[in-house]
Amino acid sequence: MQATLALPARRIGVLGAGQLGRMLELAGRPLGQRVELLATPEAPGEAPDVLTFESESLAPEALALAARGAPIHPPLRALVLGQDRVHEKELFARLGIETAAWAPLAGGQDLPAAVVRIGLPALLKTRRGGYDGRGQWPIRSTEDVARAARELGARPAVLERFVPFTRELSILAVRAADGERACYPLVENHHVDGILRLSLAPARVAPRLQCEAEAMAQALLTELEYVGVLALELFEHRGRLLANELAPRVHNSGHWTIEGAETSQFENHLRAIAGLPLGSTRALGPCAMVNLIGSLPPARAVLAVPGAHLHDYGKEPRPGRKLGHVTLRAASEPELAARLAELAGRIDLALPEAVRRWMHSSSCAST
Amino acid sequence: MQATLALPARRIGVLGAGQLGRMLELAGRPLGQRVELLATPEAPGEAPDVLTFESESLAPEALALAARGAPIHPPLRALVLGQDRVHEKELFARLGIETAAWAPLAGGQDLPAAVVRIGLPALLKTRRGGYDGRGQWPIRSTEDVARAARELGARPAVLERFVPFTRELSILAVRAADGERACYPLVENHHVDGILRLSLAPARVAPRLQCEAEAMAQALLTELEYVGVLALELFEHRGRLLANELAPRVHNSGHWTIEGAETSQFENHLRAIAGLPLGSTRALGPCAMVNLIGSLPPARAVLAVPGAHLHDYGKEPRPGRKLGHVTLRAASEPELAARLAELAGRIDLALPEAVRRWMHSSSCAST
Repeated sequence: MQATLALPARRIGVLGAGQLGRMLELAGRPLGQRVELLATPEAPGEAPDVLTFESESLAPEALALAARGAPIHPPLRALVLGQDRVHEKELFARLGIETAAWAPLAGGQDLPAAVVRIGLPALLKTRRGGYDGRGQWPIRSTEDVARAARELGARPAVLERFVPFTRELSILAVRAADGERACYPLVENHHVDGILRLSLAPARVAPRLQCEAEAMAQALLTELEYVGVLALELFEHRGRLLANELAPRVHNSGHWTIEGAETSQFENHLRAIAGLPLGSTRALGPCAMVNLIGSLPPARAVLAVPGAHLHDYGKEPRPGRKLGHVTLRAASEPELAARLAELAGRIDLALPEAVRRWMHSSSCAST
Repeated sequence: MQATLALPARRIGVLGAGQLGRMLELAGRPLGQRVELLATPEAPGEAPDVLTFESESLAPEALALAARGAPIHPPLRALVLGQDRVHEKELFARLGIETAAWAPLAGGQDLPAAVVRIGLPALLKTRRGGYDGRGQWPIRSTEDVARAARELGARPAVLERFVPFTRELSILAVRAADGERACYPLVENHHVDGILRLSLAPARVAPRLQCEAEAMAQALLTELEYVGVLALELFEHRGRLLANELAPRVHNSGHWTIEGAETSQFENHLRAIAGLPLGSTRALGPCAMVNLIGSLPPARAVLAVPGAHLHDYGKEPRPGRKLGHVTLRAASEPELAARLAELAGRIDLALPEAVRRWMHSSSCAST
């Protein structure tokens, strides 16, 4: 197979110029790739050898325009699918990937019937759009129905049964052009107000759950004839995994791989789309990834913590904006817990209760 | 102490635009630093917050020009010292750092007397200049003396007794502006024709040798009031360490730290000169760093090797030119030896005899 492949792509276009594009650019330099970030599809520049993207909310037409005839990876089909919660859930169902119970709505008028069918509590989400918790309404009781239906208005939507999950997890998988695949270890994610705050990797899970997650991701890679990194968000519920949603791109819950895995998600995405062999997804040690949101702490405070790796995205501060992240790498879970406690103290970080419980249990394990 | 420090430097100027500058630039981006590579001291651009350099052959006047009043780290004193083999060896002697026997020469006419004093075999080196084996003449017997003296001419030089060393090693050390220091593990280096071909890190050495090397490096950091990364090349001879030469900069024998250490030499150099705390110099696992000289192998061949990390410097190929390097990282020495054998096969790499012996002994250790 290798002999028939074209030369590896060296000019990589990325539609989008945020932190994901920036981290792709940094990963491409040592590989001899020129990764060009395109803020808009009309941005001037040479035609790339291959085009990729850092946001799932782009129009396929914009990608076709930016590609100027070059191949687009991941495939547009995956992008379009991920933009439609109904099609996404239908695909999950077709592939035998379990989800929470759900129902499609043509608009707010369908909400009462959907509530009867799905039960409460539930989560109403617009069928298209919505990100980091926007375009979502929790429906806890029948009192919430009228207001949510009004706010949704004529937009199509889905109603999902709220699952009292044990944990939120995600898996990142990557597929190369020649079909080679690899999966990273499951990651445990902690959101606050719908925004990822902290990831722990590799997640402490039974090997069975890792297998289950890999099977789900592999089914999606195959079905979509995918090339690149794909992220699948999951709930752990009663010892099983339920799929939440997929993202056809490198993903915030994979940032730990820059320092924490043999090959980062960014490098593996570039290797895949450029026609190069994939790198190992082995974890090098336990990691915690902390998002820096709204404002950046002083670099001195972050870097004083042993094993801390700062990523300043160079963006203007704004409330709720992801401005950077810190990855803590350690040789053991107790050491990681101690470093996370030190970081939290130095940068005044409020840790979610579940993370504090994990730190406590990890510290105890060392004594 | 921290409260009195100024804000960390964010605009870093690097005089020199080769691969060392490029790797500094890549390390600075996540730290929020703008690392600007200056091909010449007159290169246009804003004044930096701090100036550093990637070559030890620069004139101090050029650095002063490029700095435009900004502080220069490492100190010019270290740069100037490293440019003069006599001053360098005098400093080693003053600090109790052992070297091979040596004698200064005002020019070729002093060679016969120096040979009598130092003995043979010996190595004649110009007092200033010379790099990657240039400006050096081996004096194996008295027959070599007349020719070497003639070729040296009126240039000042040193004659060094040739030491039949067991191994070539190097140690990288770093000192921050507030006096904090750290040393990386010793590295074992293999040169061919005076050019570094391959490094193994951490070197397999007795802990005593690591202590000895750290003491030498620390003495130099203190004496020079050094800020930044310093490399010290060493010979292992009869169980002792002899200093060969220092380089006041990040160093080829430290490239393995990008993937192989908790914090890379490039990041630690930037942290030091920017007034930030240093990062851990802990090794993550055994590594081999292979220089790619003269031509680059296909990226596909390199990346097919598990644990291989490619660094393509984006330079035009030219015989003898360093165009890139590959770092292999592994979980154990036997695994590293197997990966190195695979890489050598895939890219048609001739491994030095000593490295083949090491690979053989490592493979045996696994069975």
